[in-house]
Amino acid sequence: MTIRLSVDTLGSETPLSEIILGLSESSLRYDDYFFYWFGNEKKIKKELNHHKLLLNKSEIVHCEETIAMSDKPAEVIKQKTNSSMFKAVQSVIKGETDSLLSCGNTGALMALSLLYIKTINEIKRPAIASIWPNLKGESIILDLGANTKNDSRYLIDNAILGASLASILFKIENPSVGLLNVGIEENKGNEITQMTSEMLLSMSQRGVINYYGFIEGTDISEGKTNVVITDGFTGNIALKTAEGTAKMIQKYLKLGFESSLISKIGYMLSSLALKSVNDRLDPRIHNCGILIGLNSPVIKCHGSSEHMGISYAADIIYSLVKDGVNDKIKEYISHSMKNR
Amino acid sequence: MTIRLSVDTLGSETPLSEIILGLSESSLRYDDYFFYWFGNEKKIKKELNHHKLLLNKSEIVHCEETIAMSDKPAEVIKQKTNSSMFKAVQSVIKGETDSLLSCGNTGALMALSLLYIKTINEIKRPAIASIWPNLKGESIILDLGANTKNDSRYLIDNAILGASLASILFKIENPSVGLLNVGIEENKGNEITQMTSEMLLSMSQRGVINYYGFIEGTDISEGKTNVVITDGFTGNIALKTAEGTAKMIQKYLKLGFESSLISKIGYMLSSLALKSVNDRLDPRIHNCGILIGLNSPVIKCHGSSEHMGISYAADIIYSLVKDGVNDKIKEYISHSMKNR
Repeated sequence: MTIRLSVDTLGSETPLSEIILGLSESSLRYDDYFFYWFGNEKKIKKELNHHKLLLNKSEIVHCEETIAMSDKPAEVIKQKTNSSMFKAVQSVIKGETDSLLSCGNTGALMALSLLYIKTINEIKRPAIASIWPNLKGESIILDLGANTKNDSRYLIDNAILGASLASILFKIENPSVGLLNVGIEENKGNEITQMTSEMLLSMSQRGVINYYGFIEGTDISEGKTNVVITDGFTGNIALKTAEGTAKMIQKYLKLGFESSLISKIGYMLSSLALKSVNDRLDPRIHNCGILIGLNSPVIKCHGSSEHMGISYAADIIYSLVKDGVNDKIKEYISHSMKNR
Repeated sequence: MTIRLSVDTLGSETPLSEIILGLSESSLRYDDYFFYWFGNEKKIKKELNHHKLLLNKSEIVHCEETIAMSDKPAEVIKQKTNSSMFKAVQSVIKGETDSLLSCGNTGALMALSLLYIKTINEIKRPAIASIWPNLKGESIILDLGANTKNDSRYLIDNAILGASLASILFKIENPSVGLLNVGIEENKGNEITQMTSEMLLSMSQRGVINYYGFIEGTDISEGKTNVVITDGFTGNIALKTAEGTAKMIQKYLKLGFESSLISKIGYMLSSLALKSVNDRLDPRIHNCGILIGLNSPVIKCHGSSEHMGISYAADIIYSLVKDGVNDKIKEYISHSMKNR
């Protein structure tokens, strides 16, 4: 089965050359990966000429209308029906492609996906998930801002969506799921976390899901569970706070290494070690958000991604489609139904 | 004016020797600092004998009952009325001392403080605030878990409390206040953040507070504002996630430096630079929570603090009492009333 990806090339800060280079890298890893490019035909053709192999696996759909980062989602839906993002979404719902990658306006992408691609039956709202490094490897965290309303229903959905993602991306049978809270004792947190935890515990006892219990912020980087679930408000702020902290430390380190000639020499000698740390945390790579819970998964790269980030995202979406993440989600749902 | 501090020495993982060493360090910096020790008299005396200067500024109140980390706050209030924490709280409300430092059970400390020390008129609930390093220096963040319920009223209180702390601790006139949100555009976030922002904007226009607007998680470590306000659920999780990330990076670095002989040499040469980074972020130092909004501020050190953390906390509470943080809070409140 060939995997067909729609690529929205307009309206992002990422240069077209980086988008195409990233997808070229990914296409070299996967023979059966095919691309539908939405954007300026002439410019896309020019870039594709540098990547002959990719050119043979490409089809271009010319679009000129761009959704700006500042455009309001509600207006986009009504007015920007000729935009590359709109057309790319349409190609997915028509079944011409399996999924969509964009570096554009997240709110617009979420709104268009929700309206046209729609959620899987039984999933009320899609979530934005991300893969986060930890001391044992990586974990899936969601929601990162799709739903800023805190509601048990969404958190339960997140558990199912996250477990499906982890089982496909990490190739594990029964991924463990932790619920973020302000402490691990059962009386900690607010009404929503308490209620959600009880529901997850009952699902766990019925064998639907592998629920670990409450976890704290520090447990994310310890890698205590394969999946971390929280509401979109807390998740967005927690992850951006952590990102900011990582950047701050890297800046401090840089300043420290520049502070004397000896530490400069030390830096040169240890630069390989430092590079491996930076690679693990590199936000240019780990910066994509997976819109999950939709009838086709959609991937959003950061507005200013570089080719590594694009190819990382393209690899993820390839695995998700190839290994049937939506079948996995439906399996979890039907398992949870049967057990009720 | 002598500053008198009650010190609860029981029920924490911090050894008594570290608590006393920390306060001895702080007492050397401040001549007019006096200590009331609550705990085992014999053991306290033995330790104080190593710190003659501190001994002269000390009074011991013998207590044997301990509040364990696992004790439930509601039970502590009823049953542990002979504990060192309970007695220490009583000494504050009797006016024998100005403030209280504890490394014990946070929930119990919060419950006892709320019940006996009580909040300042017009402040509904105390908050837990912390000082967080950023690229420009430091900022105050609150709430870190006192109120896990998200409510505009608490957020407004947090703005007043945080601005008061920042103006005293950072010695600045009009500290800027940012409200954590999932984005900086005015339509971002949920109803509570929207409503709170409007109220803060109006307070700002009336000159009550210096409101910056929405900020994102990444802006904390950028140092965009002097004060960062959020609800206790989000704040607790965000800061613990950031703490975990910092620890993970430090562990990665250590592994990286150990990976080869050359990087080991590099490490030795750059160890001074790395030490300065670690000092800035050292959770053994920056780990105290300021319970603010009470009739006397109370300070909570992490259960497993070392002497640096204790002396850092003792310095903070000294400044807060000496420079009248509660007068500052009342000034903000009355200013906000007058302007209504």
